[in-house]
Amino acid sequence: MPTTGTTTGTTTKGQRTRRRIVERAAPVFNQRGYAGASMRELVVATGLEKGGLYNHFGSKEALAVASFDHAVDIVGECLSTARASEENAVDQLIAVVRAFARGARRPLLPGGCPIMNTAIEADDTNPELRAHARVAMNDWHRLIGSIVKHGTEVGEVVAGTDPFALATVVTSALEGALMLSRLYDDPAHMDRVVDHLVAHIEQVRAPVPRSRRTTAKAQ
Amino acid sequence: MPTTGTTTGTTTKGQRTRRRIVERAAPVFNQRGYAGASMRELVVATGLEKGGLYNHFGSKEALAVASFDHAVDIVGECLSTARASEENAVDQLIAVVRAFARGARRPLLPGGCPIMNTAIEADDTNPELRAHARVAMNDWHRLIGSIVKHGTEVGEVVAGTDPFALATVVTSALEGALMLSRLYDDPAHMDRVVDHLVAHIEQVRAPVPRSRRTTAKAQ
Repeated sequence: MPTTGTTTGTTTKGQRTRRRIVERAAPVFNQRGYAGASMRELVVATGLEKGGLYNHFGSKEALAVASFDHAVDIVGECLSTARASEENAVDQLIAVVRAFARGARRPLLPGGCPIMNTAIEADDTNPELRAHARVAMNDWHRLIGSIVKHGTEVGEVVAGTDPFALATVVTSALEGALMLSRLYDDPAHMDRVVDHLVAHIEQVRAPVPRSRRTTAKAQ
Repeated sequence: MPTTGTTTGTTTKGQRTRRRIVERAAPVFNQRGYAGASMRELVVATGLEKGGLYNHFGSKEALAVASFDHAVDIVGECLSTARASEENAVDQLIAVVRAFARGARRPLLPGGCPIMNTAIEADDTNPELRAHARVAMNDWHRLIGSIVKHGTEVGEVVAGTDPFALATVVTSALEGALMLSRLYDDPAHMDRVVDHLVAHIEQVRAPVPRSRRTTAKAQ
């Protein structure tokens, strides 16, 4: 198994080397394409010879998959941190939207969103990468869905809000907006979509009950 | 110049051959990637030897660009036809959304949206294809913008509606939804985004003036 998680006290030297390779290979794959990156580019980026890379990963495809998972971890961690920064479910949703959107100006990883890159590139060509892209998108949908569900339970989100619909609308619009912003080198496209999504998400904000409003004022 | 427009009475044999090559090459490029399609795949699809292809296009890159433009023409024609099918500006916007969305179930061309494929693939690698993708996206934005502007002028769209914002939201959400639908082999993602966009577009429908409502009833 590739070492793409966080390192621990029990990490072996081999695991640390694999992690270092993946950290350096991930930007290459994300920019050049997970199928399109050349061995030569990977050798230059990682500082290891072809034989060394094969020693650690067995194949370029295995290195591509490990690099993809690492890239997705970076984005996922950023979105989870954004969620944790807010108390209210609706504010959490908006924080997740804004955290992803910041990637249009300051990419977490060169080359855009690894899920979209892989989904587009691998849709007709690479079933294993495609499966990993599905898992990564599932995680993102689950993050949004769980905020909606919890928010509905505690009365912060309007009852009857469809978590699946909201997850699809948010991820579709953000992925498309990142594509447009990168195509035009113009983050205005992302800004417009963020404005739209924030307004849409605000529509599911449950009105604060009178009792809680009074408590908030008293504090 | 590649012959990617409609043929006319004055089309030469060379132009007809080029068009036939482009029609057969376009699905290969759109599925395998505009940089990723191999010469062998193109030879098989077109039925011409490598030398024959170079005779007509000079390079694989030139054939890729001509094939991209052809693929975009197919999508563009579909969207223009959808617009022409409706009288009212808001109905035209919805018809354009639905026409693009149909591609999630019945693709106009195998491999998904050529603009998104090229935007994702060419963002870090191929400036010429990227330029063509920008032109194609400009055309789509212009189509939506012109419907909004005309609709505002004739009072069918609420005054003050931002044509740029609407164009960005519609194209981002549809492109992202197509990506999700293809990633999961599940057009439900597109259906959810269409529901969302139709509701959003309906918000800019200007109320029918009393005089016109009376006329409509009388007819």
